[in-house]
Amino acid sequence: MKELPIHIQLQPESGKTLYEQIYEFIRDEIRRGGLLQNEKLPSARLLAEDLQVSRTTVDMAYGQLVSEGYLEARPRQGYFVCAVEGLCVIDAPARGEKYGGGSESSRVSEQYDFSPTAIDMHFFPYATWKKITRNILVDANSDMFALGEPQGDLELRTTICRYLHGARGVNCEPEQIIIGAGNDYLLLLLEKILGRHIPVAMEDPTYVKAYRIFRSCAWPVTFVPMDENGIRVECLRQTEAQVAYVMPSHQYPTGISMPIGRRLELLKWAAAKEGRYLIEDDYDSEFRYKGKPLPSLQASDRNGNVVYIGTFSKAIAPAIRISYMVLPYPLLARYRQECGFYSSTVSRIDQTILNEFIQDGYFERYLNKMRKQYRMKHDLLLTELKSFRKAFRISGSNAGLHVILTDRMGRSEEELARTAQETGVRVYRMRDFRMEESGDTAAMLILGYAALSPEEIRKGIDLLRKVWL
Amino acid sequence: MKELPIHIQLQPESGKTLYEQIYEFIRDEIRRGGLLQNEKLPSARLLAEDLQVSRTTVDMAYGQLVSEGYLEARPRQGYFVCAVEGLCVIDAPARGEKYGGGSESSRVSEQYDFSPTAIDMHFFPYATWKKITRNILVDANSDMFALGEPQGDLELRTTICRYLHGARGVNCEPEQIIIGAGNDYLLLLLEKILGRHIPVAMEDPTYVKAYRIFRSCAWPVTFVPMDENGIRVECLRQTEAQVAYVMPSHQYPTGISMPIGRRLELLKWAAAKEGRYLIEDDYDSEFRYKGKPLPSLQASDRNGNVVYIGTFSKAIAPAIRISYMVLPYPLLARYRQECGFYSSTVSRIDQTILNEFIQDGYFERYLNKMRKQYRMKHDLLLTELKSFRKAFRISGSNAGLHVILTDRMGRSEEELARTAQETGVRVYRMRDFRMEESGDTAAMLILGYAALSPEEIRKGIDLLRKVWL
Repeated sequence: MKELPIHIQLQPESGKTLYEQIYEFIRDEIRRGGLLQNEKLPSARLLAEDLQVSRTTVDMAYGQLVSEGYLEARPRQGYFVCAVEGLCVIDAPARGEKYGGGSESSRVSEQYDFSPTAIDMHFFPYATWKKITRNILVDANSDMFALGEPQGDLELRTTICRYLHGARGVNCEPEQIIIGAGNDYLLLLLEKILGRHIPVAMEDPTYVKAYRIFRSCAWPVTFVPMDENGIRVECLRQTEAQVAYVMPSHQYPTGISMPIGRRLELLKWAAAKEGRYLIEDDYDSEFRYKGKPLPSLQASDRNGNVVYIGTFSKAIAPAIRISYMVLPYPLLARYRQECGFYSSTVSRIDQTILNEFIQDGYFERYLNKMRKQYRMKHDLLLTELKSFRKAFRISGSNAGLHVILTDRMGRSEEELARTAQETGVRVYRMRDFRMEESGDTAAMLILGYAALSPEEIRKGIDLLRKVWL
Repeated sequence: MKELPIHIQLQPESGKTLYEQIYEFIRDEIRRGGLLQNEKLPSARLLAEDLQVSRTTVDMAYGQLVSEGYLEARPRQGYFVCAVEGLCVIDAPARGEKYGGGSESSRVSEQYDFSPTAIDMHFFPYATWKKITRNILVDANSDMFALGEPQGDLELRTTICRYLHGARGVNCEPEQIIIGAGNDYLLLLLEKILGRHIPVAMEDPTYVKAYRIFRSCAWPVTFVPMDENGIRVECLRQTEAQVAYVMPSHQYPTGISMPIGRRLELLKWAAAKEGRYLIEDDYDSEFRYKGKPLPSLQASDRNGNVVYIGTFSKAIAPAIRISYMVLPYPLLARYRQECGFYSSTVSRIDQTILNEFIQDGYFERYLNKMRKQYRMKHDLLLTELKSFRKAFRISGSNAGLHVILTDRMGRSEEELARTAQETGVRVYRMRDFRMEESGDTAAMLILGYAALSPEEIRKGIDLLRKVWL
C-alpha cells in the first residue's frame, strides 16, 4: 500500500484553525473521490513535518475524521480511508450513525429519511412531564438535592422492577437493579463488574456502538453469524467467548425475534460453564405488532446467567438519560464489592420525575399511544411495500421500528442506496452494520419509519417504487 | 494466619434472607471484637459448604462487608478483617466515607459531626433553581428532549470555560471541555482516553475514592509521600508513573495548598517525558480564606500536560450530577478518536438549567454567600481552637472546608477519636486516608465544619477541649 502525499495549502488568514483546514481538506478529498477506499494516509508525524504544524494538530484532524467514519485507524499500521464510495452522495448519516456521530447529518438533505434510530416525539406528553417536574420541585426538600444511592433510588428501582415483571416477564428484586445515565455508562460499569479482557461474542450484523464500547474496554470480540432465528449457537459454542451480547426481542439491525427454542439453546450455552453470561439488550422491546408479546430472555433464565439492560431513552425521550441493568446475584455481589463506591450518575430529581411518570400511569398510557401510532405506521409501510415483494424479501417486521428489505435481483446495496438517494430518500445499508465480510450476500436495506408521518412514508415509498421496481 | 471457623446459626424463619443473616453475624462479630484485625475468614466456598448455602449467598454477604469496610479482599489470599478496632464506638462513618458507603452513618449517633465531606445546603436557592427549571420547561421544545452532543452542550461548555478562566485561571477553549455525570464517570472516561494499565502516582494520604477507581481500572498505583508543600516531586521522579493525580489547591485530606515552586517542579516532571499527564482535581477550589486566590495548576501549564477536573456537586449541590474535565489537545484528539461515540450522561434539560443558573449570575451570588458563610465558620473554628495550640498543630486552614489537628503529645488517633466519640463528637482519623504505613507519625485528626452551625461548632469544640486538653 503506498504512502499518499497530501498537498494542503494551509491558510493562516482564513479564520479557520489549522486542524479544521486539514480535517476539511481530507474529508473533501474522500468525498469527491480523490482519496479512495483503503488508501493509506501519511503518518501524523510525517504530515505534521510536511505541513510545519504540530503533531497534535494533525492528531486532532485525524481523530475527527476517524470519529466521523472517513478514516480508520488500524493498530500498528496507520490511517486508512474507510469504505465510503459514494459517501458524498449517499450515506454520510448512515456512517455517522455507525460511528455514533450524527453532527454531520445535514451534509446532504433527503426529503424522506427512513432512519432506524429516530423516534417520534410528536406525542410526547411535554405538559405532563413539566407538571410532574413542577410538582416535585414544589415539594422538594434538601433530601432531593442530596446524593442518592449508588444503585439508584429504591423507589424508582421498585417501580422499574414491577414494570419489567409485568411487561417483560423479568424476574428480579429491586436490589438487583442498577440505574445509570445511559446504556453506554452501564456497559462501562459492567466491564468493571465482569472484569478485564473478557472474551465477548456478538451477533453479526450488530449494534455497532456496543461493539465500539467493548473494543474500547479491550474485550476481545468474536462475531457469530446468524440465521433466520438469530445467533447460531453451534457457532457460538466454537468460540472462546465467556459473554454473549444479544438482542433477542428484535435484533438490531436484522429485526429478527429469537424464538424460544433458540433462546433455550442460548441459555444452555451460558449455563454449561461457570462464569458465562448473556447480556440481553432489550432496546425496543416495547413495540411489537404480531403475535403475543415475547417475554425477555431473562424471563426464561433459571440459572442467573442473564444481565438484562434496558433504557427509557427510546421509549420516552432521548433526553431521559436513564437506563437500567438487572444483575444476577453473583454479579450483584461482585458489583457491591468492586463497584459499590461509584456514585450514581442520575440525579435524585430526575429519578423522582421518572418514577412519578411511571407510577401515575403516564408511561403506560404514552406507550399505548405510541404502540398504536407505530403499529399504524408499520401497517401502512407494509401495505405500501406490497408491490415490492417480487423484487425484495421483507423481514424483521414483527416488532420494533424498522424493517429489512432483501433484494432478489442481484443489485448491490450501494446501487440501491444511491438510486434512492438521488430521488430524495435515505435508506440504510446492512453492510454498515456487518462486522465481518459476508461473502456475496444479497443486498439488504434497513428502513426505519418511527419518525416519519404517514404521508411521508407513502411518498417516500412511492419514490422508491419508481427507482427500484 | 489461621482459618477462622464461623459458627452462624442460620434461622430460615427469621424473615431475613440468608445473606443478610451471614452479613449481620460477621459484622457484629467484628464490631464486638470477636473477629480481630487481619484475621482471615474462611473462603466463600468453605463457608458455603459449612452452612449448606449457595456460594452466591456467601459472596453477597462478603461483598457487602467489603463494601462497608469491614472486610478486605486480598488477591489470591482471601478475606481479612480490616483495621477497625473500636469501630463499634468510633468511626463507622469515617470508614464508610473511605469506602464510599455512608448507609451505615446512623450506626452511632454523635451530636457534633465534624465531617469533612458534608456541605451546608441551608442557603441553597431552591426557589431560584425551581424557577429556572419551570421557565426552561415552559420554553422547552422537542430539541430539549433530544440527545445532546457527546461532549455536552456547547452553551454550557462555553459558560464553564468562561467561569474557569475568570475564577481559576484555566486556559482552555469550550471544545476542550467534556461534561459528564460526576467525577467518577469522568475518571472512567479518562481511563478509556489515556489507555489501559497506565501507572499512576497519588499523594499519600489521598482521596480514597479516586484510588478505588484507578484500582478498578487496573491502573497500577504508586503512592508518593508529601511534605508541607505537597507531593514530593523528587520521590515522584523515582517512580514509573506516567500520570499523577493531585489536588494542588487544597489537598484532600491534608489541606495543603501547593505553592508555585512545587507546582512548577511538578509541571517540569510532566513535561520531561512524552505522554506524561497531571490530573488536577480541583474539588473545593471555590473556597479560600487567606491570601490571594491561587489559580489552578492548569493555569501555569505551558505544555498541555494537565487534565483539569472539577464538579458542581460540591459548590452547588450533590444532586447536581454535573462535572467537567478539560483535556489538553493531544488527549482531546484521542478522546474524539477513541471515545467520541459515548453518549452524554447528562440530559440537555439539566445542562440548560445549570447554564442559566451560572449565566444569570445566581452561581456567583451563591458562591459569594457560601464563601462568607464558610469563612465565618472557618474563623470561628480557628478562634475556638486557639487554646488547642499547645497540644496540637493546626494546619490546612487556608482553603476548603476542613482543618487538620496534629497531636503534639504522643497520643494515638484511636485514643483521640475515641475520647471525642465518648463525649458526643465525631472527628476523622488521618490513618483512614493513608495508603501506606506511615511509621510513627504524630496523630492527625480531620475536622470539617461546613455542615455545622456556629453554635454546633462552639459546643463541639468545647466538648473536645474538655477531653483533649
